[in-house]
Amino acid sequence: MNNAHTLALTVSYDGTDFSGFARQRTQTTVQGEIERALAVVLGRDIETACAGRTDAGVHALGQVVSFGITQQEAKERLPEKFCRALNALMPSTVVIRDASLKPLGFSSRFDAISREYRYRIVEGQIAPLFLKRVAWWVRIKGVLDIEEMRAAAVHLIGEHDFKSFCVATSAQGKTTMRNVSEIELYEEVQLGERCLVIRVVGNAFLHSMVRTMVGSLVDVGCKRRSSDWMLEVLAAQDRCTAGQKAPAHGLTFWKVTYPEH
Amino acid sequence: MNNAHTLALTVSYDGTDFSGFARQRTQTTVQGEIERALAVVLGRDIETACAGRTDAGVHALGQVVSFGITQQEAKERLPEKFCRALNALMPSTVVIRDASLKPLGFSSRFDAISREYRYRIVEGQIAPLFLKRVAWWVRIKGVLDIEEMRAAAVHLIGEHDFKSFCVATSAQGKTTMRNVSEIELYEEVQLGERCLVIRVVGNAFLHSMVRTMVGSLVDVGCKRRSSDWMLEVLAAQDRCTAGQKAPAHGLTFWKVTYPEH
Repeated sequence: MNNAHTLALTVSYDGTDFSGFARQRTQTTVQGEIERALAVVLGRDIETACAGRTDAGVHALGQVVSFGITQQEAKERLPEKFCRALNALMPSTVVIRDASLKPLGFSSRFDAISREYRYRIVEGQIAPLFLKRVAWWVRIKGVLDIEEMRAAAVHLIGEHDFKSFCVATSAQGKTTMRNVSEIELYEEVQLGERCLVIRVVGNAFLHSMVRTMVGSLVDVGCKRRSSDWMLEVLAAQDRCTAGQKAPAHGLTFWKVTYPEH
Repeated sequence: MNNAHTLALTVSYDGTDFSGFARQRTQTTVQGEIERALAVVLGRDIETACAGRTDAGVHALGQVVSFGITQQEAKERLPEKFCRALNALMPSTVVIRDASLKPLGFSSRFDAISREYRYRIVEGQIAPLFLKRVAWWVRIKGVLDIEEMRAAAVHLIGEHDFKSFCVATSAQGKTTMRNVSEIELYEEVQLGERCLVIRVVGNAFLHSMVRTMVGSLVDVGCKRRSSDWMLEVLAAQDRCTAGQKAPAHGLTFWKVTYPEH
């Protein structure tokens, strides 16, 4: 095919029932569903790229998925019409929020300059109800020490080798340097329930990096570890030193930023 | 039983899979689940009262359920312990947020001085994803005219005969006068999705009253009706004049206010 443009889709999904984003032969995945619908709409096989491959159970609000289309295809369907056609073919757990035409060379993966994830925690003795699918219930007496968690988070900001926060096998032979520009912790009320949000922004993330950061921050919040322990974890460059990986369902891939054209 | 106190539970539930609040012989209901758990915890049959009987599919954040307990029962379990014991027996779609001891004569139903409901709407061409279970998708081109909806809502505030907003059969022989003290319409972002909230506060509500008010307000927002049409509906005292009943899943019984002791 002689592709003339790239089409970029902004996609939200509830990750609960998917075996992650990335296409797999025998499992239901978000990419699999999108490519299946694209094949129906465009009448040919399409291979998509994405801004971030989310794990099984992880949600997305603003995942970006891109693929090449021909001059003819771009002419036949305006992006809005494309969006409607795709949504009609999607399961109710995936919503295409927007479609926009980009120059041919655009890649949702390589052109991203920053990625934002948000992790929701409901702490205490009372289980979340409306937030059950999208927040980790940290069942503790009392509350998490947010100030200590903030102090620990400060150590993670900046350019570091995040090898300790990465699934070991996927790091082999590749750089594990990443630049985390922001980690913000704040409380908010969503659907009437109070939760703690950990908002993380960086240029890119290693496999399981955000969830391992969150799990380690919760160890600090529960007073199992001090905030300075985070420095030791970073320095060790060993996954065994970090905390538990926080569960998938608390995590949402929030948005992706691209350079303005 | 010689009851010495009343215990009041603040209860949240996701109404999706319940046949409403009120106990029924063959259906799964919220009251049925609570009374089943109470029988286990207290070892005797308990009959509960509630602040508002919600319909099938309607959610609650702060429903209040009350029942009498003996001096002995109150002594054996502090309210917090009671709460934990009940939650351990509840399905994951019901959460007891709080239990508190009240004087013997207290009734969650008759002592309530006001009740608040919130109705969520997601408007436009893009379906809600994270709000799917708790918001009505009003699928329209463009947006609802919120200013017109507010103008219509003003007519509903105050003491009126709300017969036109009530399921006819349940109004027979009873007064249909109610006092609506507040109707507020505002946009907010919940779980990353924009929605319109219609917040209604009143002393008490007739069967289907909030949902019929919301359905009628949406008729105004879609320009099918003018804001002054609401005056005609009120005056007619006939259910046939009002708009459609908005779907159950957009509605949440938000909270109940009692006099301070």
